[in-house]
Amino acid sequence: MNKFTKEVMSVGEMASGAKLTVPVYSFKSENNSAASVYIQANMHGAEVQGNAVIFQLLELLQHCDLRGNITLVPYANPVACNHKNGEYTLGRFDPITGVNWNRMYHFNQSMIQPFAEQYLDANEADIRDDFKRFLVTELDQKLAHNIWGITTGQRIAYQLQRLAHQADIVLDLHTGPISSKHLYCPEYAQASAEYFDIEHTILIDNDFGGAMDEATFCPWWSLQQAFEKLGRNFTMGKGAFKRESFTVELGSQEQIDLDVAKEDASSILAYLHSQGVIDNQQYQPKAMTRYACYLKDYKAIYSPMGGMVDYLAEFGKPLAAGEPLARILRMDNYGDGEALHNVSVDEDVIPILHFASASVNQGTELYKVFCNYFKL
Amino acid sequence: MNKFTKEVMSVGEMASGAKLTVPVYSFKSENNSAASVYIQANMHGAEVQGNAVIFQLLELLQHCDLRGNITLVPYANPVACNHKNGEYTLGRFDPITGVNWNRMYHFNQSMIQPFAEQYLDANEADIRDDFKRFLVTELDQKLAHNIWGITTGQRIAYQLQRLAHQADIVLDLHTGPISSKHLYCPEYAQASAEYFDIEHTILIDNDFGGAMDEATFCPWWSLQQAFEKLGRNFTMGKGAFKRESFTVELGSQEQIDLDVAKEDASSILAYLHSQGVIDNQQYQPKAMTRYACYLKDYKAIYSPMGGMVDYLAEFGKPLAAGEPLARILRMDNYGDGEALHNVSVDEDVIPILHFASASVNQGTELYKVFCNYFKL
Amino acid sequence: MNKFTKEVMSVGEMASGAKLTVPVYSFKSENNSAASVYIQANMHGAEVQGNAVIFQLLELLQHCDLRGNITLVPYANPVACNHKNGEYTLGRFDPITGVNWNRMYHFNQSMIQPFAEQYLDANEADIRDDFKRFLVTELDQKLAHNIWGITTGQRIAYQLQRLAHQADIVLDLHTGPISSKHLYCPEYAQASAEYFDIEHTILIDNDFGGAMDEATFCPWWSLQQAFEKLGRNFTMGKGAFKRESFTVELGSQEQIDLDVAKEDASSILAYLHSQGVIDNQQYQPKAMTRYACYLKDYKAIYSPMGGMVDYLAEFGKPLAAGEPLARILRMDNYGDGEALHNVSVDEDVIPILHFASASVNQGTELYKVFCNYFKL
Amino acid sequence: MNKFTKEVMSVGEMASGAKLTVPVYSFKSENNSAASVYIQANMHGAEVQGNAVIFQLLELLQHCDLRGNITLVPYANPVACNHKNGEYTLGRFDPITGVNWNRMYHFNQSMIQPFAEQYLDANEADIRDDFKRFLVTELDQKLAHNIWGITTGQRIAYQLQRLAHQADIVLDLHTGPISSKHLYCPEYAQASAEYFDIEHTILIDNDFGGAMDEATFCPWWSLQQAFEKLGRNFTMGKGAFKRESFTVELGSQEQIDLDVAKEDASSILAYLHSQGVIDNQQYQPKAMTRYACYLKDYKAIYSPMGGMVDYLAEFGKPLAAGEPLARILRMDNYGDGEALHNVSVDEDVIPILHFASASVNQGTELYKVFCNYFKL
Repeated sequence: MNKFTKEVMSVGEMASGAKLTVPVYSFKSENNSAASVYIQANMHGAEVQGNAVIFQLLELLQHCDLRGNITLVPYANPVACNHKNGEYTLGRFDPITGVNWNRMYHFNQSMIQPFAEQYLDANEADIRDDFKRFLVTELDQKLAHNIWGITTGQRIAYQLQRLAHQADIVLDLHTGPISSKHLYCPEYAQASAEYFDIEHTILIDNDFGGAMDEATFCPWWSLQQAFEKLGRNFTMGKGAFKRESFTVELGSQEQIDLDVAKEDASSILAYLHSQGVIDNQQYQPKAMTRYACYLKDYKAIYSPMGGMVDYLAEFGKPLAAGEPLARILRMDNYGDGEALHNVSVDEDVIPILHFASASVNQGTELYKVFCNYFKL
Repeated sequence: MNKFTKEVMSVGEMASGAKLTVPVYSFKSENNSAASVYIQANMHGAEVQGNAVIFQLLELLQHCDLRGNITLVPYANPVACNHKNGEYTLGRFDPITGVNWNRMYHFNQSMIQPFAEQYLDANEADIRDDFKRFLVTELDQKLAHNIWGITTGQRIAYQLQRLAHQADIVLDLHTGPISSKHLYCPEYAQASAEYFDIEHTILIDNDFGGAMDEATFCPWWSLQQAFEKLGRNFTMGKGAFKRESFTVELGSQEQIDLDVAKEDASSILAYLHSQGVIDNQQYQPKAMTRYACYLKDYKAIYSPMGGMVDYLAEFGKPLAAGEPLARILRMDNYGDGEALHNVSVDEDVIPILHFASASVNQGTELYKVFCNYFKL
Repeated sequence: MNKFTKEVMSVGEMASGAKLTVPVYSFKSENNSAASVYIQANMHGAEVQGNAVIFQLLELLQHCDLRGNITLVPYANPVACNHKNGEYTLGRFDPITGVNWNRMYHFNQSMIQPFAEQYLDANEADIRDDFKRFLVTELDQKLAHNIWGITTGQRIAYQLQRLAHQADIVLDLHTGPISSKHLYCPEYAQASAEYFDIEHTILIDNDFGGAMDEATFCPWWSLQQAFEKLGRNFTMGKGAFKRESFTVELGSQEQIDLDVAKEDASSILAYLHSQGVIDNQQYQPKAMTRYACYLKDYKAIYSPMGGMVDYLAEFGKPLAAGEPLARILRMDNYGDGEALHNVSVDEDVIPILHFASASVNQGTELYKVFCNYFKL
Repeated sequence: MNKFTKEVMSVGEMASGAKLTVPVYSFKSENNSAASVYIQANMHGAEVQGNAVIFQLLELLQHCDLRGNITLVPYANPVACNHKNGEYTLGRFDPITGVNWNRMYHFNQSMIQPFAEQYLDANEADIRDDFKRFLVTELDQKLAHNIWGITTGQRIAYQLQRLAHQADIVLDLHTGPISSKHLYCPEYAQASAEYFDIEHTILIDNDFGGAMDEATFCPWWSLQQAFEKLGRNFTMGKGAFKRESFTVELGSQEQIDLDVAKEDASSILAYLHSQGVIDNQQYQPKAMTRYACYLKDYKAIYSPMGGMVDYLAEFGKPLAAGEPLARILRMDNYGDGEALHNVSVDEDVIPILHFASASVNQGTELYKVFCNYFKL
């Protein structure tokens, strides 16, 4: 049975001086021949199911044949996961500033070109090791004493990213509001999407928006492109550039289900088996039709009016153009106006998630859908 | 086809001067021989399904054989139903003061005894009419210009209560957080609980706590008791004391479902048919086993620890003493403590509802359950 | 120099498992002849100045001549003091339930009469010691394992109240929203109000509403009254019934000022000197005109309209009937209505505090004022 | 006496169907020879003082000698100004999404180059008129029916920006949290900063971040630069490129003071007189030392720890390197650590504003200060 170690990382302090900490679990493989892995959960406060998945991974990994090191971090953002607003958890942003907790990771594009020039003739192992060290050192400098300070969210994000940069594979476990399972996957790693038991994949480009997945693959993708321009070709996802980062959306927020978590853990182990991180034939992806679309085609529909929404469209099932996604109830219009209003779009879509509440303002995001989708 | 009228009642003003209004729908019966009815929904912001039920009642009542007047008020509390906090609606209390919106209705116990003394020998119709007028006038005085003013919630509550006091039957449509359907019913009206398609009923005493149902039956019940002490006997629920008030809990908050709303509307029509308010044989209660308990036996279980909850117990299904209601995940204890903790109680219960989120503090209400329950 | 001890009391757990703790500082007097004292601060999240006062008390008490034991508890409610909502601290209530944090203390009125009967002929020292023990034991039983649990706020309140019940004098340090200094004082302890450097005192009756001050003097006052009915007379504030509890309102919330805190600490020391708890002549109350009113005459004015408020009335200065307290700006009415609206009352008042924000709904509490005030 | 017209613009709908509207006041000059002006207030919910300034401007402008048209919009964002969270107004961001309300204006950089090419030889008046029309049309298209919809904040922002684009001078009235007065001014308009009675000016570059001021000057500045690259030179601030946009920070949020508002209105009239929009010699800027710094030198200091802050540094007064800005109280450390911690920086600064609350998390923004400042 594999042993893990547990450390406690301090990520913040509240007004009373209360220290907020994050547990960090690590498995070290004896024959560390394979890629190393970093998995975190609960960066957004309400997105708690990933903690249960990490629970099940810890249970299962103790019985796996490990070939690579694995680090697991539940409760990644205790500021957010402890922040109640009424009965619910204020999920997505710092309650003081409004900044989305998953938009505060770091990537310094300006360091790519000089690095590529300096390492143009270096061997592949040196490139890999030095660039990794470079990424970690940059964060260490930002975290170290700095007279102007950094924000609450940066402090949390940078400490997590330090751990993530030391791994080759990164899985950031999230959920949607009310949502089906889906996967954010870099375009170059599309083949890996077929190892997860997730029917819908969004393929993303090399465009840094501040999220953990981007923050861990964009530096390498940018470096590969910089080398390419200088005439040296590497393939993303291979050799020194064996980096894969995914945001795994596990379903709906505000819920813990340990049984579903066990299925999701198995799905992740199937992917890790495919990458050689564990050697356990019993973890295999399920047969299913997998759909994908490009990030530009993953579109939101904003409510054309205030009202109360009866969400109609089923997740994951193609919906023909013109079919209603939702109908909006407007009792104030009953008797002298239209009390029910259908919302539809004029192209075929696959609904993936919808807003967490029936009550919406004009302009609230109602649904997110796949357009121009295709089979993987 | 019955016609209804629609009025707009102003219930508040926001900082920008925006006026908040409530639509009031009224059916007048030509042969107004039966009891009159008041139905409202959405006093708590997140409890929106009642609006859909009122939509369906408006659709159905136009085709009923009406024998009593019916007033219907959706969006009863626009301050609350428009108040978003993160993605959710801040449901239960004034965001400025914390006071529960359904604890601000009015009942002046001290006026009961003098009224009973004054009307000891009056005829029943005069007692009914004058007491009704008395209740309405008291509210009018509070609402009229008053140099010290009244609170935001009182202004809303009193205006709704003015309408309710003019009816004989009051239905206040609510929902639980995540919840099965259940009914709050005054003990004397227990027989009426069997006309609703609701399996679980809480029987409540003559104890005013500020809610709409109590605010509309406690004055009458107190008056009946005062007369009784003075030697004149009336029966609650009969003749001049034909008053029934229910809080109807329609299921879970933050959801609108128009199809389920149609079923709930039919259930309400079955009750109204039983009371002679409509004369439509097609509305009959469904056969089902109905359970009840007294309010003192409707108990909350508070979380013994902070953590993330996997709610296990099914709503409405008796649970044996010692069986787990929920298990609480505590990842921070994984590896060096207990990561999973079962919550149970040492008596048989029927779970009715649970908290809206998986994330709880130590002391958050987890479940509400029936103890010492019995069949109706 | 007096030494103090420091303990850490655990008062709650958040969803991540984070433990919330409160520091408890204690001075033990060698010749413990005088009354013992309990002082706490920051039960409401935004009311932070009391922490600075406790800082200054800790600095000063080390150099005093102590005659009684003193316990000091800053950050009494870390759940509340860490709860940000936007830039501000959500002050007054549990963000999940809306219940005011200072309405959750315990007092079981039904235990008074049996105790008085049982101790009717007991000596005074036994009455004092056994009743104190009785009060503490009741809380211990509530806090000990209880299958149904207690709420988040009760757990905090009961642990603080356990400490307070062991003292003879209780000071609960609060602030208003935007406020002058004022004092809540039980009617029987009116003489003590003159030892604080606070110009305005509200005299309160023996009516338990859930607050810390009431929770620590009402049991003793009720007991004294029960004995009186049984024919045995004690004087509140003397001998075994030497109990004084005050809520000290230090000014405005959301502010820390260490210099002002030093003045407030001196004022508290002047009171403690007057009670013989310290023997330090240098701490004397300042000469000032002190006004008081009864709690029933401490009245709120609720806004007659939504709008934006220019608060005009100065705190602490008598305002003649009809003079404006505030004017409300309603730009939406400019040009076709009244853009400015004065708020006044028709009796003489002393304004004590006003709402924390210029933006109000119709029905928001604007000012609190003394009516029927008199000089102490 | 000049007459104004008043219109009501609908900017949003809430869940209850409540419509949110904004009053729009317009003065039309008979001899419309001068620049036209757009002034708005209260885009951030808690920043209410600008409404009082618009009140005073409406009072004063009726008696001015008008040479240009002036549009004034108070309560620009009723969603935000009506959103209470506890006692305060949730100021800066959409409570559902966290997006800063003043980061949702529109600027399409990609349209600049084609326009410049097309109008390379056009006359100046055509460039001005057609570009203005172009900017407005783009917004009209976004606001018109669009099957995917736009966000709540975009709908508000675009409607305001439509009005602003039609003017030559734009003043967006804001406040800081707790703050001195200061001015955001485009670098090319530096000379105009001396007409405001505001001691501190931040000079900003042509870098669009989503705010109203940038949204109205960046298109013109970008166009001027595009023409310059094509060989045709215009001067920003002159002729067709007479565009000035300022964010005027009026002091602290959550306050209305009509007397101070009158001073601020006079200051704005002094600026308008300097631009020829009114011809009233009595409005002249006050003599004062005015300081400025570039936006890159307007720096935030983030709290190095959680705690409660005694803000020490005075606004507007140069503070030597190493002098404390604030001291942070940490009562949990009293007796066995450092209870007071000074915060300072190692260069000379002018403090401009600080955080709204004493309670801060590690990483909360404490102060904003001018570095490398200079006299205007």
